[in-house]
Amino acid sequence: MDFHALQQRLRRFANERDWQPYQTPKNLAMAMTVEAAELLEIFQWLTPEQSLNLSDDQRRHLGEELSDVLLYLVQIADHGGVDLDAAVERKLAMNAIKHPPKKS
Amino acid sequence: MDFHALQQRLRRFANERDWQPYQTPKNLAMAMTVEAAELLEIFQWLTPEQSLNLSDDQRRHLGEELSDVLLYLVQIADHGGVDLDAAVERKLAMNAIKHPPKKS
Amino acid sequence: MDFHALQQRLRRFANERDWQPYQTPKNLAMAMTVEAAELLEIFQWLTPEQSLNLSDDQRRHLGEELSDVLLYLVQIADHGGVDLDAAVERKLAMNAIKHPPKKS
Amino acid sequence: MDFHALQQRLRRFANERDWQPYQTPKNLAMAMTVEAAELLEIFQWLTPEQSLNLSDDQRRHLGEELSDVLLYLVQIADHGGVDLDAAVERKLAMNAIKHPPKKS
Repeated sequence: MDFHALQQRLRRFANERDWQPYQTPKNLAMAMTVEAAELLEIFQWLTPEQSLNLSDDQRRHLGEELSDVLLYLVQIADHGGVDLDAAVERKLAMNAIKHPPKKS
Repeated sequence: MDFHALQQRLRRFANERDWQPYQTPKNLAMAMTVEAAELLEIFQWLTPEQSLNLSDDQRRHLGEELSDVLLYLVQIADHGGVDLDAAVERKLAMNAIKHPPKKS
Repeated sequence: MDFHALQQRLRRFANERDWQPYQTPKNLAMAMTVEAAELLEIFQWLTPEQSLNLSDDQRRHLGEELSDVLLYLVQIADHGGVDLDAAVERKLAMNAIKHPPKKS
Repeated sequence: MDFHALQQRLRRFANERDWQPYQTPKNLAMAMTVEAAELLEIFQWLTPEQSLNLSDDQRRHLGEELSDVLLYLVQIADHGGVDLDAAVERKLAMNAIKHPPKKS
């Protein structure tokens, strides 16, 4: 996934629909949270085991909600001035320090 | 961003910490929503305009929260059996049909 | 609002539908978050000013989402063993200490 | 719980801290969602069974987060012009129609 190319596509998509005035990081963060909760809804009454064995329909639905979250996520990074690839590497390094492995 | 390579790294990271039993899509979806809300918290009392002009500290914080959401997102795709690159392309095509452009 | 009476009504409602196995605090917390996000969705593309001037339809929708959140909230308190009236008073006292008033 | 009295207390509390400009329904809805996610975080890695058997510390923490959600909820109702008691009764009636009981 080329985040920069995707961000350009999404900017063009928004421009063609006059959505720019709505595209503040604040609004996009709300929209991403709404989509995260729609994803959560898929699992809300499932047992942990059932969540590991999704039907084809549930998996397709999950793919749509994951995409919705990701599309807002890359737009927040774009409009908020964050280099997402660099931020992820930095976070992985922080996590490795915060949570030392149990095993050698 | 190579999602498959990242998913392998995160599986190894979880294995080294005995986290596998917790890594159900249900739990990961909860964790992703919690991180989405931590990102939302950055913007909660800001005006739309302020959210477009973040300080360096706010931008670094935003990068960390975006990464947290993304790391759980790719793990949900991995454990839920979703091909994330394909799902995003499919969703972009659906969005183009659902929201026709205003301009030619 | 008599929380105890409402909790009894909701327990009876769930029993009559065989919903008890799903009524764990974990699942109810997911459901409450989903409803909170549905409420958030009402405001997601509104300006702050527009959010202060809702139409009758928006206000009715808001009332439904507020109720959904509240109904799950009192069920979480019930199944989690929390006295909600006492917890609120305790939190108000904590908030008054945490945030001293600016004016005398 | 007298919602109207609580709303008056919270308005006074906000006034004494010059928080009125921030108290739009849009911002309050964001804040409520953030608190709902903090509550969700308590349960995120627990099994359903563990979520039914909280320690005293977990129960106290749960009470604080439930209160945070409720305090924002009544403020959204107040600033959004919703009569919360009436809205809840209306929603309970709607739910009874939407989900007919399985048992007589």
